[in-house]
Amino acid sequence: MSTLLGHNFIAGARSAQGSKRLQSLDATTGEALPFEFTQATEAEVDAACRAAETAFGEFRHLSPARRAEFLDAIADEIDALGDDFVAIVCRETALPAARIQGERGRTSGQMRLFAKVLRRGDFLGARIDLALPERKPLPRVDLRQYRVGVGAVAVFGASNFPLAFSTAGGDTAAALAAGCPVVFKAHSGHMATADQVGCAIIRAAEKTAMPKGVFNMIFGGGVGEWLVKHPAIQAVGFTGSLSGGNALCKMAAERAQPIPVFAEMSSINPVVLLPEALASRGDTVAKELAASVVMGCGQFCTNPGLVIGVRSPAFTAFQAQLQEQMAAQAPQTMLNAGGLRSYAQGLEHLLAHPGVSHLAGEPQSGNQARPQLFKADVALLLEGDELLQEEVFGPATIVIEAADDAQLKAALHGLRGQLTATLIGEQSDLVAYQWLVPLLEQKVGRILVNGYPTGVEVCEAMVHGGPYPATSDSRGTSVGTLAIDRFLRPVCYQNYPEALLPEALRNSNPLGLKRLVNGEWSDAAL
Amino acid sequence: MSTLLGHNFIAGARSAQGSKRLQSLDATTGEALPFEFTQATEAEVDAACRAAETAFGEFRHLSPARRAEFLDAIADEIDALGDDFVAIVCRETALPAARIQGERGRTSGQMRLFAKVLRRGDFLGARIDLALPERKPLPRVDLRQYRVGVGAVAVFGASNFPLAFSTAGGDTAAALAAGCPVVFKAHSGHMATADQVGCAIIRAAEKTAMPKGVFNMIFGGGVGEWLVKHPAIQAVGFTGSLSGGNALCKMAAERAQPIPVFAEMSSINPVVLLPEALASRGDTVAKELAASVVMGCGQFCTNPGLVIGVRSPAFTAFQAQLQEQMAAQAPQTMLNAGGLRSYAQGLEHLLAHPGVSHLAGEPQSGNQARPQLFKADVALLLEGDELLQEEVFGPATIVIEAADDAQLKAALHGLRGQLTATLIGEQSDLVAYQWLVPLLEQKVGRILVNGYPTGVEVCEAMVHGGPYPATSDSRGTSVGTLAIDRFLRPVCYQNYPEALLPEALRNSNPLGLKRLVNGEWSDAAL
Repeated sequence: MSTLLGHNFIAGARSAQGSKRLQSLDATTGEALPFEFTQATEAEVDAACRAAETAFGEFRHLSPARRAEFLDAIADEIDALGDDFVAIVCRETALPAARIQGERGRTSGQMRLFAKVLRRGDFLGARIDLALPERKPLPRVDLRQYRVGVGAVAVFGASNFPLAFSTAGGDTAAALAAGCPVVFKAHSGHMATADQVGCAIIRAAEKTAMPKGVFNMIFGGGVGEWLVKHPAIQAVGFTGSLSGGNALCKMAAERAQPIPVFAEMSSINPVVLLPEALASRGDTVAKELAASVVMGCGQFCTNPGLVIGVRSPAFTAFQAQLQEQMAAQAPQTMLNAGGLRSYAQGLEHLLAHPGVSHLAGEPQSGNQARPQLFKADVALLLEGDELLQEEVFGPATIVIEAADDAQLKAALHGLRGQLTATLIGEQSDLVAYQWLVPLLEQKVGRILVNGYPTGVEVCEAMVHGGPYPATSDSRGTSVGTLAIDRFLRPVCYQNYPEALLPEALRNSNPLGLKRLVNGEWSDAAL
Repeated sequence: MSTLLGHNFIAGARSAQGSKRLQSLDATTGEALPFEFTQATEAEVDAACRAAETAFGEFRHLSPARRAEFLDAIADEIDALGDDFVAIVCRETALPAARIQGERGRTSGQMRLFAKVLRRGDFLGARIDLALPERKPLPRVDLRQYRVGVGAVAVFGASNFPLAFSTAGGDTAAALAAGCPVVFKAHSGHMATADQVGCAIIRAAEKTAMPKGVFNMIFGGGVGEWLVKHPAIQAVGFTGSLSGGNALCKMAAERAQPIPVFAEMSSINPVVLLPEALASRGDTVAKELAASVVMGCGQFCTNPGLVIGVRSPAFTAFQAQLQEQMAAQAPQTMLNAGGLRSYAQGLEHLLAHPGVSHLAGEPQSGNQARPQLFKADVALLLEGDELLQEEVFGPATIVIEAADDAQLKAALHGLRGQLTATLIGEQSDLVAYQWLVPLLEQKVGRILVNGYPTGVEVCEAMVHGGPYPATSDSRGTSVGTLAIDRFLRPVCYQNYPEALLPEALRNSNPLGLKRLVNGEWSDAAL
């Protein structure tokens, strides 16, 4: 394991010019861990952003294969982070070792998957329209397009995925794959983890001879604003709260040069229970659902926060079963004390609402989160009550009973944008309730059938995105390979000398790309 | 030709509830034309947006082939708009008939090109990751992704392309192709033109049995704000001024549900003259460049507003030649009186600046725009003076002389984002000045060699976009087929019954798409 300096990472070196110290805490005990960090100064944030901007000049011109080497090297370094590293992550997050080991594999796997995307090359979006000198009434000139990175990207680490959505997480992987150097803002909840992963990335960058400044990391509380407002930063990736994401979007929009922000924010992930499934396996669903709600102490963006069905004896029985299941769930330690405070506050809001009744869970107290089950009047969704629209981050969920199919539809219509929606149904249910799907398609990024949203596969087809407020831009995803698109923009070359074109666009097709040539896909040389 | 009612287009019918009347004017004489329009009321804007939202439910589920039929039918209707129509457009815009005839062909061609994209199907972005039930440590579920339209789109017509960037223009074509119904805000400068094209679209919609509300159009001055703030609207396309685009972006960002705005705004389109070309053909370049500057009275987004080179005897000679050319250019009538006022104001700002000298052109007066040539001190670019950063819309351009290559680089670095940059050079120049290209790539959407930016080909490889302030989002284009991407978002289906999947994602591949299956491209059935 690397020595834990606690300094900011700037242009391949370490820097600690500031006087403000930050302490890493044991998430379980609240005790100070023996790791101290130095908050970045404004000058250091500036230096980190400038370093990324400078690195962009070289990094973006490396061949996709060279960038793939870098990502593969990061993956190897992450895999090599051993038990002592896992122990640190566990202390900082209170997450169990098995989860962290799994997340380590997901994080390195994610890097390797983007390396594969780079080698495949389709992310370049190469398009060629050859000259048509004889065309009437006007000739057509030669036009060629491909996609380049947008520039330096700021990434904000998520609290709940100390590896897979933090330092070397999905946003970092997508940005680096796109040819965009990163300035990473470490989350205060796992700074020692971030430091170790940052060192792993720097080792990989050195081994593969990447430009200094390809990866930079800053620590500190108020430093994010400097980062987002810095003129060198060209896009922002963020995973966190709705208020945090909204604040970043506002800052980015008010810059002299506005930039896009890809913020993954609030989602309550409705689970729709269909009648035949309830009748045939309501008890199993209750068990599985309770397990999904409390998994990782409910600290998933895709945690099922709303369970909805149509009134029936089977749904009534299911609610009793879910009540029993939720009552039996043990309290768990949250990622940090702030998370526990927010959870307690969210529960208080629910308890205080006259349209909400409490079905299961011991009164929240102590230093662990106690799983809770609520039931809310369907009127809250029909009338657009704010209470149900924002997630309560933690092991709680809310049941809603619709009087009939029409009310189910109206209630789902009342939801804002979501990362996921889940249908639990028999085949006959799915056919009978097909009319739900067009509605859900407009509300969410991912529709699941007979599963639970808390597992997010990192693959080509994943969408971890969705209409606002699930994200700030429904046209992107923050998990899966399509995430690279967020950091790319097209450039067109008109009548450009063949020999000087980027490799992706040369007649000889040296990268072996599938290209759209005169409107038809081809991997041939021209 | 259709009877010119002057009513708003809402849900396939016409509506004129308001009391405010708008008059179409002859652009050349300023006289009122015999066409009167009724400004949309807030209730009518609401009705138009609701109609688009309702139509979305049906329109998005039509097969791409059906939507292609609609676009082809629009193209046919536009081609059928005859001489009397062309005469109206000419009166409203003061553009010559040949230009309007050409633009008519470009507009119908654009529709047909998007129809081709629809039939090819790659815009759907189909991706399939098949289930891996045996995978360790965890199985993978079946995941499939494709792209759907974002919802109803608001489009603001451009002043300068009454056909190709207005009612049935690029943004409308891209939105309809993406499955997004349109609410079009007609430009006040060519409302009769808009009415006739709107009728053509409605005829096409009726012939191909499209849902009512697939296309709606509203007239009026203050109605754009209601449109952008309407909850049914999910994205905005705009071509116009920087202040107008910024205002729309702000409105869209401040909505309860923020939405993306694709605004194509201000660009001065630098032309870089390289030394060998200047030496060997400076006189020809001066002639061609002057023609490009005054083409269409300089009213192109890609009008070359800045001409830059390195000090040399050849560059001095070129400036004299350009001076002579520009002095010989005749005044022309602008699109409307407002445009002429803005042009005169822009000239005044240039004339008043101590760092700018006037090289050619008669004093601006009367009701036509007089072509003008200025020379600005390179210091204005080096010091980021605001004056040179915003386009003067009309037949004027500004020469800048850099002392040497280093200053040329610094001056170009001082430019903000642009739609285009042009290099005029011999092959030897282009090799010697290769170092310019990475800089230009970061500044612009399209780099041209030995051409002039004022012709924008509608094709697969075109990029008519670029970093802010050229557009509000450099990741898009508003001309060419990639424009469809702006109005699409991905949706993922997890473990979804095969028979209920959208056609694009079914095992049998009924649309014959190239799909990314388990990370490899394939058009096979599964």
